[in-house]
Amino acid sequence: MSAEPTSTTAPRSPRSPRFGVWLVGARGSVATTAVAGCAAVAAGLHPPAGMATETEPFAEAGLPALSSLVFGGHDTVDCPLPKRAEHLAAGGVLPHGLPSAVRAELAAADREIRPGGPQPGDTRSDEELITAFAADLRDFAGRGALAGVVVVNVASTEPAPEGSRLPASSLYAAAALRAGCPYVNFTPSTGLHHPALASLATSSGLPYAGRDGKTGQTLLRSVLAPMFLQRSLSVRAWSGTNLLGGGDGAALADPGAAAAKNAGKERVLADALGAAPEGEVHIDDVPALGDWKTAWDHIAFDGFLGSRMILQTIWQGCDSALAAPLVLDLARLLLRAHEKGVTGPLPELGFYFKDPDGDASPALAEQYAALVGFAGRLR
Amino acid sequence: MSAEPTSTTAPRSPRSPRFGVWLVGARGSVATTAVAGCAAVAAGLHPPAGMATETEPFAEAGLPALSSLVFGGHDTVDCPLPKRAEHLAAGGVLPHGLPSAVRAELAAADREIRPGGPQPGDTRSDEELITAFAADLRDFAGRGALAGVVVVNVASTEPAPEGSRLPASSLYAAAALRAGCPYVNFTPSTGLHHPALASLATSSGLPYAGRDGKTGQTLLRSVLAPMFLQRSLSVRAWSGTNLLGGGDGAALADPGAAAAKNAGKERVLADALGAAPEGEVHIDDVPALGDWKTAWDHIAFDGFLGSRMILQTIWQGCDSALAAPLVLDLARLLLRAHEKGVTGPLPELGFYFKDPDGDASPALAEQYAALVGFAGRLR
Amino acid sequence: MSAEPTSTTAPRSPRSPRFGVWLVGARGSVATTAVAGCAAVAAGLHPPAGMATETEPFAEAGLPALSSLVFGGHDTVDCPLPKRAEHLAAGGVLPHGLPSAVRAELAAADREIRPGGPQPGDTRSDEELITAFAADLRDFAGRGALAGVVVVNVASTEPAPEGSRLPASSLYAAAALRAGCPYVNFTPSTGLHHPALASLATSSGLPYAGRDGKTGQTLLRSVLAPMFLQRSLSVRAWSGTNLLGGGDGAALADPGAAAAKNAGKERVLADALGAAPEGEVHIDDVPALGDWKTAWDHIAFDGFLGSRMILQTIWQGCDSALAAPLVLDLARLLLRAHEKGVTGPLPELGFYFKDPDGDASPALAEQYAALVGFAGRLR
Amino acid sequence: MSAEPTSTTAPRSPRSPRFGVWLVGARGSVATTAVAGCAAVAAGLHPPAGMATETEPFAEAGLPALSSLVFGGHDTVDCPLPKRAEHLAAGGVLPHGLPSAVRAELAAADREIRPGGPQPGDTRSDEELITAFAADLRDFAGRGALAGVVVVNVASTEPAPEGSRLPASSLYAAAALRAGCPYVNFTPSTGLHHPALASLATSSGLPYAGRDGKTGQTLLRSVLAPMFLQRSLSVRAWSGTNLLGGGDGAALADPGAAAAKNAGKERVLADALGAAPEGEVHIDDVPALGDWKTAWDHIAFDGFLGSRMILQTIWQGCDSALAAPLVLDLARLLLRAHEKGVTGPLPELGFYFKDPDGDASPALAEQYAALVGFAGRLR
Repeated sequence: MSAEPTSTTAPRSPRSPRFGVWLVGARGSVATTAVAGCAAVAAGLHPPAGMATETEPFAEAGLPALSSLVFGGHDTVDCPLPKRAEHLAAGGVLPHGLPSAVRAELAAADREIRPGGPQPGDTRSDEELITAFAADLRDFAGRGALAGVVVVNVASTEPAPEGSRLPASSLYAAAALRAGCPYVNFTPSTGLHHPALASLATSSGLPYAGRDGKTGQTLLRSVLAPMFLQRSLSVRAWSGTNLLGGGDGAALADPGAAAAKNAGKERVLADALGAAPEGEVHIDDVPALGDWKTAWDHIAFDGFLGSRMILQTIWQGCDSALAAPLVLDLARLLLRAHEKGVTGPLPELGFYFKDPDGDASPALAEQYAALVGFAGRLR
Repeated sequence: MSAEPTSTTAPRSPRSPRFGVWLVGARGSVATTAVAGCAAVAAGLHPPAGMATETEPFAEAGLPALSSLVFGGHDTVDCPLPKRAEHLAAGGVLPHGLPSAVRAELAAADREIRPGGPQPGDTRSDEELITAFAADLRDFAGRGALAGVVVVNVASTEPAPEGSRLPASSLYAAAALRAGCPYVNFTPSTGLHHPALASLATSSGLPYAGRDGKTGQTLLRSVLAPMFLQRSLSVRAWSGTNLLGGGDGAALADPGAAAAKNAGKERVLADALGAAPEGEVHIDDVPALGDWKTAWDHIAFDGFLGSRMILQTIWQGCDSALAAPLVLDLARLLLRAHEKGVTGPLPELGFYFKDPDGDASPALAEQYAALVGFAGRLR
Repeated sequence: MSAEPTSTTAPRSPRSPRFGVWLVGARGSVATTAVAGCAAVAAGLHPPAGMATETEPFAEAGLPALSSLVFGGHDTVDCPLPKRAEHLAAGGVLPHGLPSAVRAELAAADREIRPGGPQPGDTRSDEELITAFAADLRDFAGRGALAGVVVVNVASTEPAPEGSRLPASSLYAAAALRAGCPYVNFTPSTGLHHPALASLATSSGLPYAGRDGKTGQTLLRSVLAPMFLQRSLSVRAWSGTNLLGGGDGAALADPGAAAAKNAGKERVLADALGAAPEGEVHIDDVPALGDWKTAWDHIAFDGFLGSRMILQTIWQGCDSALAAPLVLDLARLLLRAHEKGVTGPLPELGFYFKDPDGDASPALAEQYAALVGFAGRLR
Repeated sequence: MSAEPTSTTAPRSPRSPRFGVWLVGARGSVATTAVAGCAAVAAGLHPPAGMATETEPFAEAGLPALSSLVFGGHDTVDCPLPKRAEHLAAGGVLPHGLPSAVRAELAAADREIRPGGPQPGDTRSDEELITAFAADLRDFAGRGALAGVVVVNVASTEPAPEGSRLPASSLYAAAALRAGCPYVNFTPSTGLHHPALASLATSSGLPYAGRDGKTGQTLLRSVLAPMFLQRSLSVRAWSGTNLLGGGDGAALADPGAAAAKNAGKERVLADALGAAPEGEVHIDDVPALGDWKTAWDHIAFDGFLGSRMILQTIWQGCDSALAAPLVLDLARLLLRAHEKGVTGPLPELGFYFKDPDGDASPALAEQYAALVGFAGRLR
């Protein structure tokens, strides 16, 4: 996003505050789509589809304007954001013409991306890495005279951690705490959910939220499972298969990463139905699908007098396009929450996550009501 | 249900009150399944799947026990209920063995079925028919020393009314009012929604509810549409096809009946989404499917930056098995409401209907909350 | 295709013969895709996906090279082909960048498009219109020094004809006969299947083929129906719904046009299964889907001992991209057949049609074998 | 099947020959369905749905009548066939009433079932087991004065063999050879495909066929894959998930067994398409589904100019009802082939198998033509 507010929907004074969004995995599909999309929506090129924060119940919540957001982040790859956006447009993820229309904003964000880690051969200790990442955050905030910076993890899912060192996602999360930044974990990776970070998180006085953005199959499950429960229909088996290419597909072909992801999916069902039904969830890497995702669910349930019934759902969507508006929503909510002095985990944001903090209801309708209530607290 | 309470789950004294359920269309699939199923569940042969009223939030609502319900009704066909139940078992709608296990209860209900009308050649006026039907209701109540009788319309959908006479469904509804019985319209037929009955209904001091039971495709729509709205995903087109055999399929092959049905389905979408999306709904009569129903829905929606996404759902269920527990729920709720002096239309029962009275929310989650609240009022 | 052979895959001498493809409905989606795609494949920009004529069994059939094809046609609308192609690219039907890459060929074809008819207010008689259209064909052939011209009807489906005048599709077909051009009817419109044209067609000494290109749902049906028959599985009901936007969706929203289309679809089933099963076919106009088409089929069949089984298929494709390569295949086959002196209807081309001429097998495998055999005759 | 021909469709003389069908896995769902179904069809209780051998092209092939078939077999479990049939009827696999209608035939077959092996703790060598099984076969043939006996493996899929001993399926196959019986392997287990049996099979002078019955998902693939090839549509990815309960689901939850099964499924695609596309196949054990199977396939293919299209199929069937008629077909074909002196592997029976012997075409249409041709050879 350029410093000049010429392309914003609502004119604001040259001195209106700007806020930083620091993306871990800043050159991935989700991050690129979020940066490009924020610029496009702020410029009025597209309606804010997929963003709850742009609807009426959030109008008075004092959220930072899209035009006030400035992006940066960590990544371990080099491909510049404008080029990455061109690739996404070629694959049908971004509209043709968008990368050139928001080239200035993409280039500005690209200049704020710093090398992530640890890379293979990196000899720095966990402490040294945290210190370095926190310094990157402070530099970003200072350079841009930012009123606040939120850290959002949108990197590829990492395998379940082993050994004595902190996983990368936890290093970034620790750096956020150290730099005084609110934190969002949009992935199933460990992040702040590491025993070594528990007391730090609690004492930080910062708001944080997670885990694992609810973009497709689990979103559906969070409305369908309550329906079966309310109607007293007994779910016998709930089976699912996800097909996706792109980076996420490849990352989740790793059994460890898939296990982390699936644990979240299955918890939603167990929580919503009262008990885990039979059935498995598969995540297949199908490179031919690119960033497009297909999720098939097959739900066998018993009706009156034991009659056997079946519901099947097929969800076809673009993963980045589903995730990016949620990332923007969360960034704005966390920035505002920090501004208002809200601290600790935010179960009120269960609307956005497969595996939310606290004892949030697993039913989307109740999660939405909690979210709207939270917006009221932010006024 | 036999007068002897020997087969009930909870023993009750010989003098505990009994309640009547008068089914218009008493020899149809839904009615037969409701009568047989009530007996089977009361006898502990099957769990009460599909009945919200048997779940915890309704435990203290004072609803009549299943074992206290006595069935009768009007129909224009002759096939005895025990034989009808055998047909349903042969078609897989009822479990094998059930018709013989509850033969006594089916035969008891069959003895309480009276001829409906008007039949072709019937020369009675509307007033005469209403009088006759009301007499049938009063006789039923008196013969069984019933503490209350609820009238439930589960007859085949009738075409939109033409001409100066009341449609049959309205004659039965008027008879219910005249006999002082609460009334439920489980079909899209006119029933109480006739201008000639409006003031009668209002002044009757009776509770009533309708219209058109929400058993499958519309049930799904009532949870999916709010999801799109809450996530700010723009639905472009919502198309659907229903395949069903049985009596309902044949009745709805009549364009007039289908139009009445579809109006309800489409209203749900328009109400829930704020505007009616593109797309049609088809109802096909496919006799080979018998009482089994398949509903396919195709929902085209736009995500972030205009990305085109699609959700498809396929619902395969047995229509009678979906409807019968709702009929039992509604009968119990209306009987209790009448006992407690509740009067007028009951928008709190929108959970059960495609086209509920009053300004009930079209979202299932909110309808469920309203229903649970209503249960509290019945204590 | 420009006169300069610089963009062809195989260089050919300046004097190698060129052939004309005259498209009725030359500014529609199918025609535009065929013209743009022929140029793109000839230039090596895309592989010849969807074109059987580019596979090995056709290598020796002497078909005209794609680079030798020159396009023209009739249409009643004005939008220039290069602009039409831009619209298709914006809708995702053509790849981005293709319209500009083949702009010269699109412009060349556009210069060869003549006004169709009859337009509202046109006072010319059928005979005058046929004469005018035939003159257009002869001018096209002469201007380009073409070795042959084939006429292909790809216009929107017209309603079943009424009254004493020839429908438009038959006027164009008659003009083809008069100008000595082989003729293909890729639509369900009447074309040559008009009693007034029967003897003309027979005596013309020209080859012709039709009717109604088999691009999606019916293609599937032509492989699935034989499977059920060979396995002796009894199909009880075969139901289908098609959703499509674009011009075809709108044209088929006309009940008359839809009836013409559906007759072909249902004939395939009746022919392949030996008897028509229960079930209907719907064609819905869903403008939000643009040129993309979704076809859902639900097939209820009985297995051993009467067990009830179900197959469902969901086909999602781009109508123009499915049709255009078949149009190119047919144009080449008819041009070559004419060159070889083949005359009359061509049941060997049943592979391409819903409602083929003659007594072609309805099974795709047998149709393919017949097609390969036909290729042998063309050597 | 009782010795008395009273229940056969075609009366035959007391001296007409009888033929034996020896089922390995004789108490499983497939075997029970085959025995019960053969009796039911022979008695005229059900039409011969699913049996190609009862259609016109096989009328003159001299196949043994269904009423001439006598059943026996090996199994390691004890549940009597009449009781097993009752279980299948309760689960909806067999029609209600069928077990009692064919009780005599089930009991007769049950008396001819001998203990299989090796059981845990069994100390017999491979040679001793083969000798014992072959003796069982000779006793069966002698006791019934049978004109021939065919051995059909319908036991649960076994894991890929390890170690120096023959897997159980190969012991039974060796016993068939030794007893001079034609052999069919309806499962993906090793059977005759063991190096130690290769020369024995060749020199046996017996006909044999396999491997792995093609009942659902692969049947579909064998008609869809040729369609894509003939239409020159490039398949990018073909993914599938199978849900099934029953014994087969549990057996295939073993990764080794699933791998054996999937190898056959994927070979069909690679053979039919010319190269293996991307995509995986999952087989999930879902006990709630009982003997009912659901297979979802998702096929991503490229059309003209690279347009991305998708076909999805959902196949819902009863595994035993799909398999049993094929088992009867194969038993009759092998018995007749042996009678006519046909020897060695029978690639002409590729119509029935996922992984057929020899270089049979993977396309169902060509397999059917080969089968009909084979029927001609049997006259």
